[in-house]
Amino acid sequence: MSETKFDVVGIGNAIVDIIGQCNDDFLAQHGAPKGHMRLVDAETVSRLYEAMGPTVEVSGGSVANTMVGIASFGGRAAFIGKVAEDDFGRIFAHDIRAAGVHFSTPPSSSGIPTARCLVLVTPDGERTMNTYLGISPDLDDGEVDPELIRSAGIIFLEGYLFDRPEAKAAFRQAASIAAEAGRKVALSLSDGFCVDRHRKEFLDLVRNSVDILIANETEITSLYQVDTFEKAMEHAQADTELAVLTRSAKGSVICAKSREPISIPAMPVNVVDVTGAGDLYAAGFLFGYARGFSLETAGRLGSIAAAEVISHFGARPQKNLAELARAQGLL
Amino acid sequence: MSETKFDVVGIGNAIVDIIGQCNDDFLAQHGAPKGHMRLVDAETVSRLYEAMGPTVEVSGGSVANTMVGIASFGGRAAFIGKVAEDDFGRIFAHDIRAAGVHFSTPPSSSGIPTARCLVLVTPDGERTMNTYLGISPDLDDGEVDPELIRSAGIIFLEGYLFDRPEAKAAFRQAASIAAEAGRKVALSLSDGFCVDRHRKEFLDLVRNSVDILIANETEITSLYQVDTFEKAMEHAQADTELAVLTRSAKGSVICAKSREPISIPAMPVNVVDVTGAGDLYAAGFLFGYARGFSLETAGRLGSIAAAEVISHFGARPQKNLAELARAQGLL
Repeated sequence: MSETKFDVVGIGNAIVDIIGQCNDDFLAQHGAPKGHMRLVDAETVSRLYEAMGPTVEVSGGSVANTMVGIASFGGRAAFIGKVAEDDFGRIFAHDIRAAGVHFSTPPSSSGIPTARCLVLVTPDGERTMNTYLGISPDLDDGEVDPELIRSAGIIFLEGYLFDRPEAKAAFRQAASIAAEAGRKVALSLSDGFCVDRHRKEFLDLVRNSVDILIANETEITSLYQVDTFEKAMEHAQADTELAVLTRSAKGSVICAKSREPISIPAMPVNVVDVTGAGDLYAAGFLFGYARGFSLETAGRLGSIAAAEVISHFGARPQKNLAELARAQGLL
Repeated sequence: MSETKFDVVGIGNAIVDIIGQCNDDFLAQHGAPKGHMRLVDAETVSRLYEAMGPTVEVSGGSVANTMVGIASFGGRAAFIGKVAEDDFGRIFAHDIRAAGVHFSTPPSSSGIPTARCLVLVTPDGERTMNTYLGISPDLDDGEVDPELIRSAGIIFLEGYLFDRPEAKAAFRQAASIAAEAGRKVALSLSDGFCVDRHRKEFLDLVRNSVDILIANETEITSLYQVDTFEKAMEHAQADTELAVLTRSAKGSVICAKSREPISIPAMPVNVVDVTGAGDLYAAGFLFGYARGFSLETAGRLGSIAAAEVISHFGARPQKNLAELARAQGLL
């Protein structure tokens, strides 16, 4: 296998998060399913924004957040995703590059705006997301640069890409280029509702195309339609080379084929906003895996990154993750 | 005097803050004067933004921040300022309304963008501001609604408005409407460099048109070109009905004509980002003054609001100021 230029290249939605606080009643009034991501149209996103209190804007996007985390660990990361030529598009492009991630997808001048996600944070630190995808899924085949895909050890894809046919096509194309080049294909299941929407296709992917599956407890039990984490874990272990399953405060479990599952504890932390917990766990794990660390160390790097990101508002790290990992003796 | 609909109406620049962290070397490299606000053109703001690390976007603007603070105390506040029909303009309008401030200035569709301020926060919590005014100063006479001005007990104006002729004309018009209606005119000197740019006009305003002067130590010593705070204070006391002078950690001094100056201590706090300290002090003071509290109580409300805003990134309060004031037995 040829040498890699990047540890990981990610493909995902390019989103700016609009973060505000609210109580549970507000979620109920606006029909927002607590703890989940729902897709909304332009009209709904405007109406909900109007009803929200003052907000803060920060770059987001699930796989984009992961790439920023990998760069913060000192990893070489690239991102492919679509923004528009508007203020939000400029914010997204600036922030991901400023974080040290290679990002060269050209912005669209079609007039369709950059994707935005209204993140409603309740006093318990849980986040409920309302995403207007805008131009984000409009990633055509030409923008999934085969050379870039082949130049990375791992390609990381988000399940959310399946929510629109154009993005799904880009996903499939990227996965096939990576497989042909002998690279690893990693998939995040993204969200329990997202799994509901695409269960059949996700099962097919997990069984046939994915080397590293990343999912939380809700997502993996939804994928296999089972009622316990243990049953889901058995299925995942049978279906994939490597399944990395996160369980919030209960930590995570890494299931490799023909091995005992490895349990990794969560780091104790004062939770402010859980947005980005899974994305940053994936950053630590994929960075560790790409650099040849043991599965246990990779998982512990994931726990460090997740703990950092849930200790503040926003889904990207505010502290240098390599320094945090060194302080724990892991780098 | 007729009854008021608003406690305070503010006129100022309508700005979105783009906040990032940097070290002192970065400021030096980019010629940004530490602790001050400088005006930059479109090209400079782009170049500096490119060089900055990842950022967070939040609504700002000096007098706009003050109005949000007044609303957070439970006061009735209105704001007049100009944004464009772009993402940043929508952010500004959303946030100030969501904070409970009346804001009805129509957005511009000229193509000139909404004002933005690159706020560089150094590890000591000091902030250095680089402002591209964009459409903000384009506030024509028709947009300074005389009825709105007359409906407020106090009109609050920022010195920054003098940086562009159109905004200065709006300032003068508003001050004259307020004076004719028997309302109080309050002025913030905004920044030491701003005072340098407009000293002669500011002195004339302070002596002839302003009822309440709000300034920090750098601004007031610059206005009178004296080398000690005490000398500046004597001048201010002679020139204005009421001078409210802030001194960072040393607290503030309120100088009313023919009275001993009143010293107000600062509240102890862990400083994260001083952006908005003066704006929020003004919010507490003006709210207290408008509601007929003693000068000492008004000053203490200012200290509470300033302490809240410097304990986190961003120039607008994250906690309810009325609750904080009640906890101190002041409301």
